[in-house]
Amino acid sequence: MDWRIKNIYAELSEKSLQGLIISLPANISYLTRYFSRDSYLLVSQKENVYFTDSRYTEEAKISLKGIAEVKKINGSVFKAIAQTCQSLRLKRIGFEERILPFAEYKKIQKELNKSAKLVPTHGLVEGLRQIKDSEELKKIKKAIQIVREALKFIQNFIKPGRKEIEVAAEIERFVRYHGARSSAFDIIVASGANSSFPHHLTSQRKIRDNEPVLIDIGVDYLGYKSDLTRVFFSGKINSLVRGIYDIVLKAQEKAISQIKPAVGIGEIDAAARQYITQKGYGGFFGHNLGHGIGLEVHEEPHISAKVQDKLMPGMVFTVEPGIYLPHKFGIRIEDIVLVTPRGCEILSGTLNK
Amino acid sequence: MDWRIKNIYAELSEKSLQGLIISLPANISYLTRYFSRDSYLLVSQKENVYFTDSRYTEEAKISLKGIAEVKKINGSVFKAIAQTCQSLRLKRIGFEERILPFAEYKKIQKELNKSAKLVPTHGLVEGLRQIKDSEELKKIKKAIQIVREALKFIQNFIKPGRKEIEVAAEIERFVRYHGARSSAFDIIVASGANSSFPHHLTSQRKIRDNEPVLIDIGVDYLGYKSDLTRVFFSGKINSLVRGIYDIVLKAQEKAISQIKPAVGIGEIDAAARQYITQKGYGGFFGHNLGHGIGLEVHEEPHISAKVQDKLMPGMVFTVEPGIYLPHKFGIRIEDIVLVTPRGCEILSGTLNK
Repeated sequence: MDWRIKNIYAELSEKSLQGLIISLPANISYLTRYFSRDSYLLVSQKENVYFTDSRYTEEAKISLKGIAEVKKINGSVFKAIAQTCQSLRLKRIGFEERILPFAEYKKIQKELNKSAKLVPTHGLVEGLRQIKDSEELKKIKKAIQIVREALKFIQNFIKPGRKEIEVAAEIERFVRYHGARSSAFDIIVASGANSSFPHHLTSQRKIRDNEPVLIDIGVDYLGYKSDLTRVFFSGKINSLVRGIYDIVLKAQEKAISQIKPAVGIGEIDAAARQYITQKGYGGFFGHNLGHGIGLEVHEEPHISAKVQDKLMPGMVFTVEPGIYLPHKFGIRIEDIVLVTPRGCEILSGTLNK
Repeated sequence: MDWRIKNIYAELSEKSLQGLIISLPANISYLTRYFSRDSYLLVSQKENVYFTDSRYTEEAKISLKGIAEVKKINGSVFKAIAQTCQSLRLKRIGFEERILPFAEYKKIQKELNKSAKLVPTHGLVEGLRQIKDSEELKKIKKAIQIVREALKFIQNFIKPGRKEIEVAAEIERFVRYHGARSSAFDIIVASGANSSFPHHLTSQRKIRDNEPVLIDIGVDYLGYKSDLTRVFFSGKINSLVRGIYDIVLKAQEKAISQIKPAVGIGEIDAAARQYITQKGYGGFFGHNLGHGIGLEVHEEPHISAKVQDKLMPGMVFTVEPGIYLPHKFGIRIEDIVLVTPRGCEILSGTLNK
């Protein structure tokens, strides 16, 4: 059996669980190395079973050979899960409490009819996913490389008169010709005052002279995601914008310089935040410093002031400080780093290049 | 107050609920007419409150003026929701049991500390969303029009030697230049045997001579979605493919001819399925006939054999029979219809044109 599944068996033993019902697609994809959609996986030492419907059955049977039995569902998937648990005589079965909707929990519980106990778990697979192996790193690096090429390509397209959505259109086309299966999320192209909204919806607005154009993009490469943000300028930069830009860049450098194993995750966020606060803009940096990235765009570890866990080698996450001045403009610079045994590697190249 | 919110107030009164915690983004978007992401809405006659974080606060305050108070969350959103429920003295509060994860339910319940009862509800807002108003229809029609233009445009691009992903790349670019904010889902381009997988992942495969190329696309126009499937041919069609194509098209016609108010939803599915079964391909049409479409690509009503509800004027859904011959090819034809007072209107134009 695949070592990833063996690892989850070990987690289950430790918690005295005989099975785990997994419904988060990225967790299923991690354990099976198959791009899972709209399906459920029951993991147990006795047997692994994948529950899916006719849209995916043929594809899944090919991909999951030797990993899990594929059950094609016609009626209730919850009934099928419960019946399988019963026929395997599982008595304590974990489920993902942060994912499974209340109604699905109730349905499985009802179908089990007291033959087994459902136990809330969280982060069992997500915990394993935090540490990337070399196969995963290759895919993440390729996803980053495609985005870097796209950013280079789009630089000459950003001109006064172009619409934000046209910039997005050209990037969407480019990344697919360069190996991406899709974008990892809706591309953000935020020009002028629109850049002051951290998650602006790319619009029909035309880029004007001498304004910042914030671009936040990521792609999916064989299931793995990238996520980078750069700010371009459609002409000259005024001194306020330049000043804010330099503060954000310096804040990012300060955070990255702290990254190495055993450092507290909260300290990384603090390093950037303290610098921005000291420069007088603490109130304009509202979001976390970053987030883990891999099979999901946002995953563990979350790089937030509140997190007390320590950095570990193999973690991959974004470092993306930002300053947003309402009705004026916003600057965010986002790179991706890998924690190495002695420090870190910026997977997205030299800072902001 | 907006009539949509008044309608949900009426639903709450009927169920003796004093408030409803809404977490499905499309439900929040429907009630507030604002494109909601990563946020929660508490609806109550006393006050509506929108819980979001710094990424969206500025944008939300502008868009939700007069509809809901915007609360910027720094710590736990569940604590904030519970505190608001307490300060409004709500005693029976509904939540969306099909959406809210088990862990979030537990957290809100704990924070409420027995000051109120959480009541599972399902489909309260989804029920209202089934019937489209004229404003919604306009947006859906525009989303369909953009896809029809894209299909016309891409016809000449589909040639032996082009990769599936290149076809997707050109469509992604085209739809953004023609008014779409984004695709509604990952574009499916499935050539040759790949078309036998109903939800094929668009790949690097090159289109070959004389094979079917199935294209399933939809876009988002101001929050509303479209979803159409057409099969093109890269040269000549052999008689097996042509025969299957004609069966699927005829099955779609048979289903559509039944559509009018008060007809059972299951009967629509049956009309197509019986014809395909009668032709000997019943075992190769595994999925439902269609699904409602609007703020979500898949929403109520689901057009499935099992559904006993009746059609009502204003419902909008896809009609998409398919036959998939493993390792050979698949044919699906998907259009969108509106139930009118006397019958139905095919919003995606004359059948498969």
